[in-house]
Amino acid sequence: MKTYLKDLVEINGTKKSRRFAYFIQFLIIFSVITFSIETLPDLKPQTRVVLKAIEAFSVIIFTFEYLARIYVADSKPKFVFSFFGIVDFLAILPFYLSFGIDLRSLRLLRMFRLFRLFKLVRYNKAMHHFANAMKLAKEQIILFMIITLMLIYFAAVGIYYFENEAQPEHFSSIFSSLWWSIVTLTTVGYGDVYPITVGGRIFTFFILMIGLGIVAIPTGIISSSLTKAVEPHDDEKEDKLK
Amino acid sequence: MKTYLKDLVEINGTKKSRRFAYFIQFLIIFSVITFSIETLPDLKPQTRVVLKAIEAFSVIIFTFEYLARIYVADSKPKFVFSFFGIVDFLAILPFYLSFGIDLRSLRLLRMFRLFRLFKLVRYNKAMHHFANAMKLAKEQIILFMIITLMLIYFAAVGIYYFENEAQPEHFSSIFSSLWWSIVTLTTVGYGDVYPITVGGRIFTFFILMIGLGIVAIPTGIISSSLTKAVEPHDDEKEDKLK
Amino acid sequence: MKTYLKDLVEINGTKKSRRFAYFIQFLIIFSVITFSIETLPDLKPQTRVVLKAIEAFSVIIFTFEYLARIYVADSKPKFVFSFFGIVDFLAILPFYLSFGIDLRSLRLLRMFRLFRLFKLVRYNKAMHHFANAMKLAKEQIILFMIITLMLIYFAAVGIYYFENEAQPEHFSSIFSSLWWSIVTLTTVGYGDVYPITVGGRIFTFFILMIGLGIVAIPTGIISSSLTKAVEPHDDEKEDKLK
Amino acid sequence: MKTYLKDLVEINGTKKSRRFAYFIQFLIIFSVITFSIETLPDLKPQTRVVLKAIEAFSVIIFTFEYLARIYVADSKPKFVFSFFGIVDFLAILPFYLSFGIDLRSLRLLRMFRLFRLFKLVRYNKAMHHFANAMKLAKEQIILFMIITLMLIYFAAVGIYYFENEAQPEHFSSIFSSLWWSIVTLTTVGYGDVYPITVGGRIFTFFILMIGLGIVAIPTGIISSSLTKAVEPHDDEKEDKLK
Repeated sequence: MKTYLKDLVEINGTKKSRRFAYFIQFLIIFSVITFSIETLPDLKPQTRVVLKAIEAFSVIIFTFEYLARIYVADSKPKFVFSFFGIVDFLAILPFYLSFGIDLRSLRLLRMFRLFRLFKLVRYNKAMHHFANAMKLAKEQIILFMIITLMLIYFAAVGIYYFENEAQPEHFSSIFSSLWWSIVTLTTVGYGDVYPITVGGRIFTFFILMIGLGIVAIPTGIISSSLTKAVEPHDDEKEDKLK
Repeated sequence: MKTYLKDLVEINGTKKSRRFAYFIQFLIIFSVITFSIETLPDLKPQTRVVLKAIEAFSVIIFTFEYLARIYVADSKPKFVFSFFGIVDFLAILPFYLSFGIDLRSLRLLRMFRLFRLFKLVRYNKAMHHFANAMKLAKEQIILFMIITLMLIYFAAVGIYYFENEAQPEHFSSIFSSLWWSIVTLTTVGYGDVYPITVGGRIFTFFILMIGLGIVAIPTGIISSSLTKAVEPHDDEKEDKLK
Repeated sequence: MKTYLKDLVEINGTKKSRRFAYFIQFLIIFSVITFSIETLPDLKPQTRVVLKAIEAFSVIIFTFEYLARIYVADSKPKFVFSFFGIVDFLAILPFYLSFGIDLRSLRLLRMFRLFRLFKLVRYNKAMHHFANAMKLAKEQIILFMIITLMLIYFAAVGIYYFENEAQPEHFSSIFSSLWWSIVTLTTVGYGDVYPITVGGRIFTFFILMIGLGIVAIPTGIISSSLTKAVEPHDDEKEDKLK
Repeated sequence: MKTYLKDLVEINGTKKSRRFAYFIQFLIIFSVITFSIETLPDLKPQTRVVLKAIEAFSVIIFTFEYLARIYVADSKPKFVFSFFGIVDFLAILPFYLSFGIDLRSLRLLRMFRLFRLFKLVRYNKAMHHFANAMKLAKEQIILFMIITLMLIYFAAVGIYYFENEAQPEHFSSIFSSLWWSIVTLTTVGYGDVYPITVGGRIFTFFILMIGLGIVAIPTGIISSSLTKAVEPHDDEKEDKLK
């Protein structure tokens, strides 16, 4: 029995385990879609019942999968407190909690159901690469994140002094100016807040000229380290050539 | 006769085939422009007649070209079901269908006329490079497209929880929140929807910091593989040097 | 006399020619600033007189410089029809034309005064690099410009079919939809036009996912070839190492 | 005594100096946060008193630190006029000035308190890298900044001629058109000003096609030189391999 389950839930080349993996992945995506549909306003009561039933079904499967993984684990506590152990637990938690607590008041708890998406990581090669790349470039990302944060803060203070008097409703404090500096330095530019004074506009020009290059660095680091993480075969090729 | 047509429609160095190619390319661009003019509102009836005539003329030429290509093909079924065979067919289809069906009700079918643009690929070196580059980086693009989709979805769910109560008209469900997360993570930022709650804005900040780097990856991969595909002579040079 | 002028206007290491170059550069920037001030509404008549005087003064100097350059040129017709010869001529032309024709009706002609900015190129190292880089990558840029144009056109046709009925005022024809596709694919996103139908939004999503990478290519090529053009010393270093 | 202070304020490996560094860094961030809170409107008088007290406390510490640094410096004038000497001085100046002058009228002076953020640079590795990278690429950045400025100016003049008549309130002069060209070429696109004439839109298209690549260059140079500055160990590895 234990060997059968081990073969089923563990990622190895057997046909059985691959089918099980595809089934779980399908169920994750399916339950995420039903989760999205649930948020639609003006749903019919029948639809709600169907969605509830689908939710109950998938939670039962996920619970079985979770228990099976604990059962077959070499070290049970190690699995329970591992990344995937916690993700598996959080993915089913909100459903069981909903019997005890009224979740309508605890809306954020329902969002925990989204942790199911992280369950996909177990099977997803791309996500593994992503995790590796993040580890690789962790130090650099943190260093430049600090510079980016300082720049965003500096931009917010500057624009506050230039625009506060002209637009007290939009630039009421440095905290509300931070919203402007985030939206501007990422070049999203919604257009809900923008400088109208000459000083503020000249300041925006300088901040944009300096800032765009700096804000682009952490994202550039992630991109390049991801590209590295995804192309390990290149080095292998070179090794063979040598 | 067959040899004459073969010389004409096949891409080889002869003067005759080059002239034919330029003529077809001109006709493609010309018919695409008339297609655009047709969409202008308040066109005079005389203009419509002229446009119809031009359309009829170009379809006749394209039909002749299509039939000639089938006639000269070594394997007729192979050409008909090849990429360019299908493109050539779809480029003339809407015109002949318009006699049978009322195209005003089947507006999307008229869009098939745009397939003529793909006919340009046959002659266009840049598009060949593009197709090669896409093949080269196919696997990577798919892997990171999945991550991008997950991130966009995750952003939509997050903003839904933060903004749904404050702006039920813009963030009515996860599906409508998806529009926000696409527009924001691509930094287009139309400004039709944006967070107004403090929680939503802080969430936007984190999503932008993480997201910009990730969304940029698939586009970065396309760019770099395209640049590779367009510079094969560099390797040749190196080979010569060695 | 000719030797003196040659020494003055030609770019060589002498102190005299350097001083003359700085003076001309200063005059170019100064006359461009006065040109900008002239466009300010509600200028006092006195200010207008002063600006006119400055303009007349700089044109006289530029005319002297132009004539001196012709005088000292080894081959006069070659200089007159060279890039800088034409630029020098166009920079002074609007002033002399303004005596004959009423420039208020020929507003575009006044813009020719801006050609003075191109005179800066003669002295500006950065602009020389830029010109070289453009020549280097000319073929690639043209190839991908074609793809970019096709994509922008394709996006415009698509959005026209999705949004024309819902927003006939913004997407009245393919030509007006082109404005949307330019603003969206460059991620500027003014927010004056944006899709509101579900189909149009899904189409926007796909176009953005595909398009951002492609639109970035020509700009990427310019950037990289400019970086190459500005770093020739790297190769020299390598040569020395070898 | 001097030895004790030297050990404390200088950055060396000792436990004492590390603790002092963390304390100063914490105080900088803490005083920056209180500075932000002070800008909030509708603050209670008690809160203001608390904030004033915190401000006084941190200034006293920073003053002690500044005097200690002067005391232990090998060459006192050299420290006072060094970058960090000036930063340390400007960080405490506004507080002492506030006794003499009414700062409400000299709002900009209060902004000098932000110089405390630069005090963080002393301890921050990332900022050191940033400063080095800027020095490395200084020449290139200046060269392309000039091109960028010329392009932004050129775009402003162009749009002024196309849009001035149609939208005299937004494009009243070249100076107000500059705001449009900055916001557009950085792709921020607030949507407060945008072309509405056909000519202006076609001009925008060409400017965007040309401009995006050029505006991206200075930012690209900063990014790449920063990446270089942060990865010196790569060269070391290569050296070892050789």
